[in-house]
Amino acid sequence: MARNTYLTMKAPEEARELWFSRIAELCPCAALGEEEVPLQQALRRVLSRPVEALRSSPAFHGAAMDGVAVKAEATFTASARRPLSLEVGKDAFWINTGHPLPAGTNAVIKVEDLNVEDEGRSVVTEKAAFPWQHVRKLGEDMVATEIILAPGIEIGAYELGALAAAGVLRPAVFRRPKVAVIPSGSEIVSLDKAKEEDLRAGRVLPEFNSLVFSALIQEAGGVTETRPIVPDDPDAIRAAILAAAEDGADLIMMNAGSSAGSHDYTASVIRSLGELYVHGIAVMPGKPTALGIVRAGERMVPVIGTPGYPVSAIVAVEEFVLPLLALWQKRGLRHKEYMDVVPCNALPSRPGMEERIRVRLGMVGDTCYAVSLPRGAGTVTSLSRADAVIRVPRDCEGLDAGKPVQAELIRTREQIEGALLVIGSHDNTLDLIDSMLRRTHPRFRLTSAHVGSLGGLLALSRGQCHLAGCHLLDEGTGDYNRQAMRDHLKGVPSLLVHLADREQGFLVLPGNPKGITRFEDLLREDVSFINRQRGSGTRVLLDYELKARGMLPAKVRGYRDEEYTHMNVAAAVLSGRADCALGVRAAAAALGLDFVPVGVEQYDLVVAKAWADDERIQALLDVIRSSEFRKAVADMGGYDTRRSGEVLWEYDGD
Amino acid sequence: MARNTYLTMKAPEEARELWFSRIAELCPCAALGEEEVPLQQALRRVLSRPVEALRSSPAFHGAAMDGVAVKAEATFTASARRPLSLEVGKDAFWINTGHPLPAGTNAVIKVEDLNVEDEGRSVVTEKAAFPWQHVRKLGEDMVATEIILAPGIEIGAYELGALAAAGVLRPAVFRRPKVAVIPSGSEIVSLDKAKEEDLRAGRVLPEFNSLVFSALIQEAGGVTETRPIVPDDPDAIRAAILAAAEDGADLIMMNAGSSAGSHDYTASVIRSLGELYVHGIAVMPGKPTALGIVRAGERMVPVIGTPGYPVSAIVAVEEFVLPLLALWQKRGLRHKEYMDVVPCNALPSRPGMEERIRVRLGMVGDTCYAVSLPRGAGTVTSLSRADAVIRVPRDCEGLDAGKPVQAELIRTREQIEGALLVIGSHDNTLDLIDSMLRRTHPRFRLTSAHVGSLGGLLALSRGQCHLAGCHLLDEGTGDYNRQAMRDHLKGVPSLLVHLADREQGFLVLPGNPKGITRFEDLLREDVSFINRQRGSGTRVLLDYELKARGMLPAKVRGYRDEEYTHMNVAAAVLSGRADCALGVRAAAAALGLDFVPVGVEQYDLVVAKAWADDERIQALLDVIRSSEFRKAVADMGGYDTRRSGEVLWEYDGD
Repeated sequence: MARNTYLTMKAPEEARELWFSRIAELCPCAALGEEEVPLQQALRRVLSRPVEALRSSPAFHGAAMDGVAVKAEATFTASARRPLSLEVGKDAFWINTGHPLPAGTNAVIKVEDLNVEDEGRSVVTEKAAFPWQHVRKLGEDMVATEIILAPGIEIGAYELGALAAAGVLRPAVFRRPKVAVIPSGSEIVSLDKAKEEDLRAGRVLPEFNSLVFSALIQEAGGVTETRPIVPDDPDAIRAAILAAAEDGADLIMMNAGSSAGSHDYTASVIRSLGELYVHGIAVMPGKPTALGIVRAGERMVPVIGTPGYPVSAIVAVEEFVLPLLALWQKRGLRHKEYMDVVPCNALPSRPGMEERIRVRLGMVGDTCYAVSLPRGAGTVTSLSRADAVIRVPRDCEGLDAGKPVQAELIRTREQIEGALLVIGSHDNTLDLIDSMLRRTHPRFRLTSAHVGSLGGLLALSRGQCHLAGCHLLDEGTGDYNRQAMRDHLKGVPSLLVHLADREQGFLVLPGNPKGITRFEDLLREDVSFINRQRGSGTRVLLDYELKARGMLPAKVRGYRDEEYTHMNVAAAVLSGRADCALGVRAAAAALGLDFVPVGVEQYDLVVAKAWADDERIQALLDVIRSSEFRKAVADMGGYDTRRSGEVLWEYDGD
Repeated sequence: MARNTYLTMKAPEEARELWFSRIAELCPCAALGEEEVPLQQALRRVLSRPVEALRSSPAFHGAAMDGVAVKAEATFTASARRPLSLEVGKDAFWINTGHPLPAGTNAVIKVEDLNVEDEGRSVVTEKAAFPWQHVRKLGEDMVATEIILAPGIEIGAYELGALAAAGVLRPAVFRRPKVAVIPSGSEIVSLDKAKEEDLRAGRVLPEFNSLVFSALIQEAGGVTETRPIVPDDPDAIRAAILAAAEDGADLIMMNAGSSAGSHDYTASVIRSLGELYVHGIAVMPGKPTALGIVRAGERMVPVIGTPGYPVSAIVAVEEFVLPLLALWQKRGLRHKEYMDVVPCNALPSRPGMEERIRVRLGMVGDTCYAVSLPRGAGTVTSLSRADAVIRVPRDCEGLDAGKPVQAELIRTREQIEGALLVIGSHDNTLDLIDSMLRRTHPRFRLTSAHVGSLGGLLALSRGQCHLAGCHLLDEGTGDYNRQAMRDHLKGVPSLLVHLADREQGFLVLPGNPKGITRFEDLLREDVSFINRQRGSGTRVLLDYELKARGMLPAKVRGYRDEEYTHMNVAAAVLSGRADCALGVRAAAAALGLDFVPVGVEQYDLVVAKAWADDERIQALLDVIRSSEFRKAVADMGGYDTRRSGEVLWEYDGD
């Protein structure tokens, strides 16, 4: 097999500087031109030159009020004691707001200050008008030839008004950079051609990076053209790049094939067509990025090879493509907000590589806590779920839990401040609560992090979340959660709020082919199990049941194979990775698995009393207690919500 | 004449609450529906319901690296000392990233860790593979049926990726509210129909509020339909509103005619078609706003009558229309940023009315200073020039200069931090510097406020700006600016930087019909003058020249009639408001006036030494010293730029 390596790995800033300087030198055609667009299509375009007013505004002295236009000097004698009568059509002229003053007049007396007499032939005023009273003077807003807007300004609603008032109906704006996106990969199918049923059945792999790129590029002022998918073949890739260049692309993005695998041809194709400056950048995710310039006839066109995994691809786009578009359009990058956050968990990292870790955030009191999302480069939900990104610098081995760091915000501060942070056991009803909370209170949301019941209580005891989701069985009493609160929440007065009773049972393939009906079956040679992680309520339940039966965990095949959520153990069973898991009925129902009940457990929310009166907690309780919530949960199967929202216990922290 | 008054004036929040509650009650049809849209058109739409994954992602266990798929357990004996040979096609299967694992395998060994032997019939590994190594497991990202996105979420690039990965190709989103905009007014002409030459000549008044509304509404998630302009006639307005309602508008905006003038029919038409809840709101600008609901057949449709002046109209839109759209789409309003700012000037206000004052901002050291823009409701440039809005509450008579207040930001903090604040005399070259500065340094800008030369030095002495524009003649020495700096900048070490020498002269109508050639002509009975404000360099020059000739200012007709800029006195002459002004040649050239030179003066920038090394100041000096700048200034006429950028004097503040 051909071997391929990152021969020219560089730090991202260094890579960007190198590529940009070569582009500036070799691709003069990429220096953007300008074009005139009608105002109706000018929103969010960027002005390419100073805009001079073509007209004055107002273009004449005009009435600022409805009334009569007069020569002010002719009214100077008017007073309450000596009202002055003005002849309409000679000394006074009826006028409406916005209309030009008749010649010889220089003030307006408003209609409310007049008495009409003599069948409308005259008006009487008791006050002298001063010159230019209630008059909008010529050029008050702008004078023809004045510069009213500078180049580089993005045209928003207000600028449209200023341009129109200035008579500039076709402003000069920068041409939009044209970006050709070429998806590649023999295994992927275009979204346009993918059928929902094939997607559902897992028969096709949808290509969606181009859709994400297009959105990012469009919002950065560019236009994209997504070209047909190219197979993993160097000649086909070469032809596709040349065709895009000949069709006038300012920038070409190859998606996937930029890594150092045996079927990754992007870097070598770029080299064969021109110059390759960078292959590999020292940032994770994002590493497999290639930067170069290709020649197509007379044109030299910048090319970026972006990684195939969506999270890596995004980093490459944000690190190289968006800055290039900003540079070409002579505007700043989108403003980024930063916030000091405290990681709830340690964030280990590989020295020599910068790592970008996506996190969810929750403001607990004055501190903003961060919980990291799964780091897989293929985990697209880590993009849509993230509130912020934490960068772990190249020169360290990671960040410590509890030590403040700066995070780059993806959501607004307002959205972050509206979030309740729940840490602990995962249950599908938490997603439902989030959805309902947002519907009833658009400012609020429930941000959940899944670390198991015990992890949730520990986070709550450290003040790192508002509430915890918990289903911890006490082996002694058979009671749920109270003893665990006493053990782990010393000094943290809190409320135990019932969320739902839920069935636990074995998740098995439809028809239960292995005939698994009791815990003893887990010892069978032909049965493999998939476990939940330590500290999860389901793990406690399993251990409790094994111990009660005198069964050794080591004898359960797969006991050490762990997943973090009910849905993930269900998926493991569905895929044949294991024959059996312990989990909730809803997870089985969701994936069409069979469910063998082994008992009912109590899933509760533990709310720190410090937040019990917070309006977000109150809104959450309203949701849990609503009949809409109970019905939706009942529809999921395996839940009993009769006591949902009941405060089961007030723990004073002693 | 019919009299009309604001019978139902209300505070804006009270007005909004009343209107919204009546809309909720009477207009159920306005409760938004939902629709499914293809992903390709879903950017920035808002999800109307929880999104469940239709597929798991990955949909199978797949290779995360290029290499061979193996059963991990079969490799446990491999080590550097005992390399393990695996037969290709039996124990090991070549696989590319993203492809599904063959049945019976559960790990991938990457190509870099293999030696190929036996002509490719076997591969050798020196390391045991652990189960699930380099495998993306089924459902690792999302499991089918899981809720992956909540309702109310705005679809951005990342969400598009998550939706596609979840197999959701047509997400359910809220329908866009449809807003009908009806411009009215017998004097206005649609932008589509206005010709640039008619606009330039001031022959037509362009209608552009609908364009501004459309942009604001589009960016708030709505769609607008701008309907034909309606004349100021109650029957026509009535018919237009009914037609818009029948065409399915969710909201109707009448533009103009909502005031209490004699030709303002909107409020009474709304009352005649349904209910009028509010006429007049206690906020300036924005007062002439009417809120109601009309009946059209079976439909009840909310109507807002917005003021005709653009700045007032914007306030009405932001106060009522955008919040209604947000409410209907169940999303929050655009996040607003606030900053503490210090007004440089007092902001008087009328008690009983909230005032919203648009300001420009400059960060001078750690303090952000605010300079107010002209407050006229027709001043559309106050919209496009503003960096922020200061609200003066209803219950006070204004805000003091120098006392910090909160301002709502229009620009980003980054933009504000990149601005140099220049206060002082106005000169057209300042606008040119701003344009050039933005072109060379997209992060920087020059924000200028025009208060005359003396006002600029006083602001600089108070530390309220970075630099001042100044042309103050010393009567004793005939020298420029040095004495004024000694007089007013005690304790403020500063640099006097030459900007340009410029001609001053009389601005007169083309052909100089009144034959004005010398200062003595200003005493003539048939000559009227328009003056610059006190403290301006031009005013000092005039007073100097009058005094030198023993002429009494009171004898100059129009001496007390003041304007704040060269362009505005030029406009006054062009419009016939005055026969003559003293000003720079560029202003005359810009408006096609004749210019009678009376001398050359020195226009300088005074830079506080504290900022002399600031990179923004350095960038500004680079601009002033560039040949491009000199050429552009020369093209304006009347300037000598040979010494531009020279530091004329270093004043140590003693």
